[in-house]
Amino acid sequence: METVIRKATAADAALILEFIRALAAFERAPAAVTATEEGLLRDGFGPNPFYYCLIAEDDGLPAGFAFYFFNYSTWVGRPGIYVEDLFVLPEFRRRGIGKALLKQVAAIALEHGCQRLQWEVLDWNTPAIDFYLAMGAEFLDEWRNVRLSGDALLRLVGMEGQQA
Amino acid sequence: METVIRKATAADAALILEFIRALAAFERAPAAVTATEEGLLRDGFGPNPFYYCLIAEDDGLPAGFAFYFFNYSTWVGRPGIYVEDLFVLPEFRRRGIGKALLKQVAAIALEHGCQRLQWEVLDWNTPAIDFYLAMGAEFLDEWRNVRLSGDALLRLVGMEGQQA
Repeated sequence: METVIRKATAADAALILEFIRALAAFERAPAAVTATEEGLLRDGFGPNPFYYCLIAEDDGLPAGFAFYFFNYSTWVGRPGIYVEDLFVLPEFRRRGIGKALLKQVAAIALEHGCQRLQWEVLDWNTPAIDFYLAMGAEFLDEWRNVRLSGDALLRLVGMEGQQA
Repeated sequence: METVIRKATAADAALILEFIRALAAFERAPAAVTATEEGLLRDGFGPNPFYYCLIAEDDGLPAGFAFYFFNYSTWVGRPGIYVEDLFVLPEFRRRGIGKALLKQVAAIALEHGCQRLQWEVLDWNTPAIDFYLAMGAEFLDEWRNVRLSGDALLRLVGMEGQQA
């Protein structure tokens, strides 16, 4: 079996959405996905894409994806890459496809002069945590993630009562 | 006293670096900043900027900054804004300048159709945590932040022994 990693194109928008839904189901949040194929097409494949995506294929069959964008470290003064999603379909696991995807993202990061990859992992996902530790990743547990959305976001800008 | 929030320009690169250094000192990591004025100029003020920055001025004096870029939620299928740094110099605190900066970032997010602001806070920074809770922010404590850099990043791409 041969695994090929390739850059996603506009023709992959429906496939990307399938992977997003499959990952959300694994993350115990299947109902959380409101993304659409049209939105993914608009945001990822225009002149100034908000994200980038790699597709892994195993003997021509879609097996997994890595979904990423650039972030920026003010300490380092360089962009880095943030991996929003990394996912391999259950039937294709234990063949090194996840690592091959991450390796390709790392190569792209180095090409762009980035010195860091970052991502997040759910605290109960022990197999993934062990995999990342074995790779030499650090866990930044001193930092808590904060999100402002919905009514609280509208309230901050003085637009409460309106739709976001 | 009048506070004005304005977009940073290329002429602000040195000021942005001063704010980055002052924030790192507050975060107990003054030696962590290797960013340079040249790098900030190149990465933030070219045709495809990696980051954006707002400056708060109080009676014409630089008082604080917000440093942000766009991220992307695969669940929502929309970009969001990630606030990398939000900082007000000690002598200008308790006047609502931090909130005014965040409010302006939120307004920019809504203009771009973003539904979320995200950022991180150090777990010992209780005043900031209380401020964010009062605004209605959520803490995503189920997610752990992971970083791959340095030798571990080079090892992943099979370039160990070389310089990043």
